[in-house]
Amino acid sequence: MRYATYSVNGDTFYGAVTDTGMIDLSALFPRWPTLLSVIQAGALDQLEAAASSASVTHHDYQFEMVLPDTPRILCVGVNFPDRNAEYKDGSTQPKHMSLFPRFASGFTGHEQNLIRPPENHTLDYEGEVAIVIGKQGRRISQVDAYDHIAALTLCNEGTIRDWVRHAKFNVTQGKNWDRSGAIGPWLVPFKNASQLDDARIITRVNGQVRQDDVLSRMMFPIREEIAYISTFMTLKPGDIIVTGTPTGAGARFDPPRYLVPGDVIEVEVGGIGTLRNGVEDEQP
Amino acid sequence: MRYATYSVNGDTFYGAVTDTGMIDLSALFPRWPTLLSVIQAGALDQLEAAASSASVTHHDYQFEMVLPDTPRILCVGVNFPDRNAEYKDGSTQPKHMSLFPRFASGFTGHEQNLIRPPENHTLDYEGEVAIVIGKQGRRISQVDAYDHIAALTLCNEGTIRDWVRHAKFNVTQGKNWDRSGAIGPWLVPFKNASQLDDARIITRVNGQVRQDDVLSRMMFPIREEIAYISTFMTLKPGDIIVTGTPTGAGARFDPPRYLVPGDVIEVEVGGIGTLRNGVEDEQP
Repeated sequence: MRYATYSVNGDTFYGAVTDTGMIDLSALFPRWPTLLSVIQAGALDQLEAAASSASVTHHDYQFEMVLPDTPRILCVGVNFPDRNAEYKDGSTQPKHMSLFPRFASGFTGHEQNLIRPPENHTLDYEGEVAIVIGKQGRRISQVDAYDHIAALTLCNEGTIRDWVRHAKFNVTQGKNWDRSGAIGPWLVPFKNASQLDDARIITRVNGQVRQDDVLSRMMFPIREEIAYISTFMTLKPGDIIVTGTPTGAGARFDPPRYLVPGDVIEVEVGGIGTLRNGVEDEQP
Repeated sequence: MRYATYSVNGDTFYGAVTDTGMIDLSALFPRWPTLLSVIQAGALDQLEAAASSASVTHHDYQFEMVLPDTPRILCVGVNFPDRNAEYKDGSTQPKHMSLFPRFASGFTGHEQNLIRPPENHTLDYEGEVAIVIGKQGRRISQVDAYDHIAALTLCNEGTIRDWVRHAKFNVTQGKNWDRSGAIGPWLVPFKNASQLDDARIITRVNGQVRQDDVLSRMMFPIREEIAYISTFMTLKPGDIIVTGTPTGAGARFDPPRYLVPGDVIEVEVGGIGTLRNGVEDEQP
């Protein structure tokens, strides 16, 4: 089962994704106005039961960022061994993971275009698996970590590369341009460890493979991400952790290969799906 | 007029602060469930009219973080000239401001204790003025910037100093410990440029002045903060910008003067108020 946030003529719904269209579930559960509120209620299972006996309601729709009202998105940086080496600063593997928040406004949905702003054209892709927390916890042990995941999705953690290094510290301004990235296409309930432990992530630009790696090679595995983050903050249902991108972003080529209007980027993980986005210049 | 979020026996309200108690305004405006929704509706003026003809409803209450449900808080780092020099890394004034998000969960309210966690005891204070956006905008000019501010408040941008440098980039994990900082005591409507331009900020620990500076000395003035941030993201009503702290945080003393249980920190700005917090060890 796959759950998406989508819109029809400007109205937003959530529902179950089928091969022939969307089953509107928001109409069946008015007490949960958004997919985030379903996650916060721990009620993904109830959607499944309802969807199995309902029929398709919308054939024409637009995917939206999967949890557009989530208040907290934390991204893990530099999480594959080759990617640390890519920085060429002579540093060995860091002791702790790098983390940075992104606001939901920085993401669009599946099959929508990333926006390249007029100020800077170094728009770059980063394919990643994103997890959605389903159970509150503080100082969660690595052994228990997976019990706190409700669902999986994908992220193109699109970045305005030049602006990542604008300031003395922090990547904030390169990572938070409006609609510079995407999260989707949908949520897949997390039921088995193998959905993450055996996952392989591939990013393609115009059909050409740019990133191809397995999550088992992460320097900071997802269990450790949950344990570490929950040391300092209570993780809550609806929080999203974007777990880190493999080597092969456009900035690392010589010369760099930044995205241009018309490019199509696909982030694919077996068992989750393929997040596909074009690129367009911001409309003046 | 001053507006606060407060709680009584675990129930949360918003209201007008008077010398004898709170005037509950949330009961008068059920269409706006929180102070954030008042800001989003652009309705602070309506609160003023209502408060002027109402009487005190709560004499015993606890201040809460002033906008506990705000989804976006952006902090400006290293924004006073001496503070850049404090880093002793030989760098000249940076060309762009440093920015980092904090989640609302990292802040408590006025007259509540900051929490020192068992993992690390380098809890430090940073007194700052915080602005609350009242009008949406993208690529706001510096000339127009103040028109987008609805209200002012104060922030003790409390930090677990050792964790700021945990990772290769970014200060995220040192800046987002649950209830390690405070925002309050209340919102003061922003009506005149002089409320910011002539402001002097003083931070005291146990009555001793530790920070004392004027906002006119900022390397990146508040008009520029609004202009720069709105270049990459659309600012929206309810967004909070924490505008930067003067020199004199505890980490810069030799030896450092970190906060310990029983300390009382006051952040004071004339015309806004005094944000006062104690410190306690996290309860096991």
